[in-house]
Amino acid sequence: MVLDPPLAHPLVGRLAVIGVGLIGSSILRAAAARKLAGTLVAYDGAEAVRARTLELGLADIVAQTPADAVADADIIILCVPVGAMATVAEAIAPYVKPGAIVSDVGSVKGAVLSALRAHLPTSVHVIPGHPVAGTEYSGPDAGFATLFQNRWSILTPPEGADEGAVARLAELWTAMGANVETMTPEHHDLVLAITSHVPHLIAYNIVGTAADLEEVTQSEVIKFSAGGFRDFTRIAASDPTMWRDVFLNNREAVIEVLGRFTEDLIALQRAIRWEQGETLFDLFTRTRAIRRSIIEIGQETAAPDFGRERE
Amino acid sequence: MVLDPPLAHPLVGRLAVIGVGLIGSSILRAAAARKLAGTLVAYDGAEAVRARTLELGLADIVAQTPADAVADADIIILCVPVGAMATVAEAIAPYVKPGAIVSDVGSVKGAVLSALRAHLPTSVHVIPGHPVAGTEYSGPDAGFATLFQNRWSILTPPEGADEGAVARLAELWTAMGANVETMTPEHHDLVLAITSHVPHLIAYNIVGTAADLEEVTQSEVIKFSAGGFRDFTRIAASDPTMWRDVFLNNREAVIEVLGRFTEDLIALQRAIRWEQGETLFDLFTRTRAIRRSIIEIGQETAAPDFGRERE
Repeated sequence: MVLDPPLAHPLVGRLAVIGVGLIGSSILRAAAARKLAGTLVAYDGAEAVRARTLELGLADIVAQTPADAVADADIIILCVPVGAMATVAEAIAPYVKPGAIVSDVGSVKGAVLSALRAHLPTSVHVIPGHPVAGTEYSGPDAGFATLFQNRWSILTPPEGADEGAVARLAELWTAMGANVETMTPEHHDLVLAITSHVPHLIAYNIVGTAADLEEVTQSEVIKFSAGGFRDFTRIAASDPTMWRDVFLNNREAVIEVLGRFTEDLIALQRAIRWEQGETLFDLFTRTRAIRRSIIEIGQETAAPDFGRERE
Repeated sequence: MVLDPPLAHPLVGRLAVIGVGLIGSSILRAAAARKLAGTLVAYDGAEAVRARTLELGLADIVAQTPADAVADADIIILCVPVGAMATVAEAIAPYVKPGAIVSDVGSVKGAVLSALRAHLPTSVHVIPGHPVAGTEYSGPDAGFATLFQNRWSILTPPEGADEGAVARLAELWTAMGANVETMTPEHHDLVLAITSHVPHLIAYNIVGTAADLEEVTQSEVIKFSAGGFRDFTRIAASDPTMWRDVFLNNREAVIEVLGRFTEDLIALQRAIRWEQGETLFDLFTRTRAIRRSIIEIGQETAAPDFGRERE
């Protein structure tokens, strides 16, 4: 996985990243590696993270206030938990220059669009975004420049958004290696409910159920996790604050998809109880085909993963 | 991941592997690499698999009948789907020599123990086993000699089993790199229900639910699978026959654990509906700790897995 060479001329004059976690620091790293911005500005609400950002040399300027962070920025990307978007938008609103693009990387788009629009002046282009990429790690040290390579980045411009601004933001994501797709915030929230939010909830849930079983010890669960459980614990190790915010801000879509999931699961349980082997076999065969499609479009390698041998 | 050097003297005179799939062919490869048996015999019910086994040079003898496969064998390991154990036991029963050990690698132990005991003479040591290791791939080409390295292999000897025979079988698994643990078949089936069977069922189910959603296209599900869904598709690509048999043969434990899972999931759904952020945050924090324990005991690496960069 290699980045394209640096650009001769930056795409953006001044790029500001607010929130230097896994995603924020990866944007900074990718933008620096490819020289996508004339000036890279970073800001984080936590002093320790600002210090670490400076130490890691992730930006040209590590701002000490939200005002300094966004002053004169052409594109501002908010990389904070979904639940913090309103507060951050309010804090930067007076200092964002007219014509600037304000975007974000949150996993929920409907709620974020409302939060940003409620606080930012209409002279600013609000174009929410969501790079579908990540790991279960958090913080400024967790990021890396190739995180978005060959991953999808979804933009959800509101109706009537400026097309030039959308194109500039898309260009930035493309330059960071992502494939860009545009859709409505509502559709995004439903798609992500099934491809990300509900899978995470289920993973958190099974790990919780296992921890609470009286007849099976915690040590047994851990020892014999190679049977499938282990893959769930990886997902269930994701950032708690981020995920709490996702579920609280995408309630309707999550509850809708969860309802479908539970209905299907109960039907499957019934098939087991009544020994309907063919029903099970048919489903298990069908799901294999979906895996194959994912490998084919290059979102995954076919190499077996044993959670080891990759030190 | 490297195997220990070959032994000077084999542990087993004649070792027979019935069923040359992922697990069977890995046993053959591990036993050959470390010279664990004087003679390695392989048999598979499918002619094509027998031919491939010969082609790959996986055994000293590729038997053409169950009778030839087990004749004079000291240890016989049945590596066939759980649902086929009874048929295979019946087929080999007249030819197993007295004092031989008959074991298996099935993911369910109570039902397998009953099936083997129903058909095999009492002069044979029936000691079921289950190496908790695998990938989502099947067939003789999918196996490899280090599959069991640092993985747990569970033996479930019936009450009154010959201790010497159990020790010999344990020694064989240890020599293939596994850590051996002994427990009752009933306890095994409950432990595996939570660490393996229910996680697989949930993975199959979510992939099925996703495929059936009318509002989200299949292509969107596949494109945006990096958000978490992708990990489930890997599990849901496992062998359909094997997994159908697992669920049909471990019905009670699976239904019991599934009941707990669903109960917990509905409570979580309720927490989302009523915006109880703290309940979500607490669970998400607790599950992180379990992941950490799994990494600590070496069943997993902490390296981020992006499903790529491992070609």
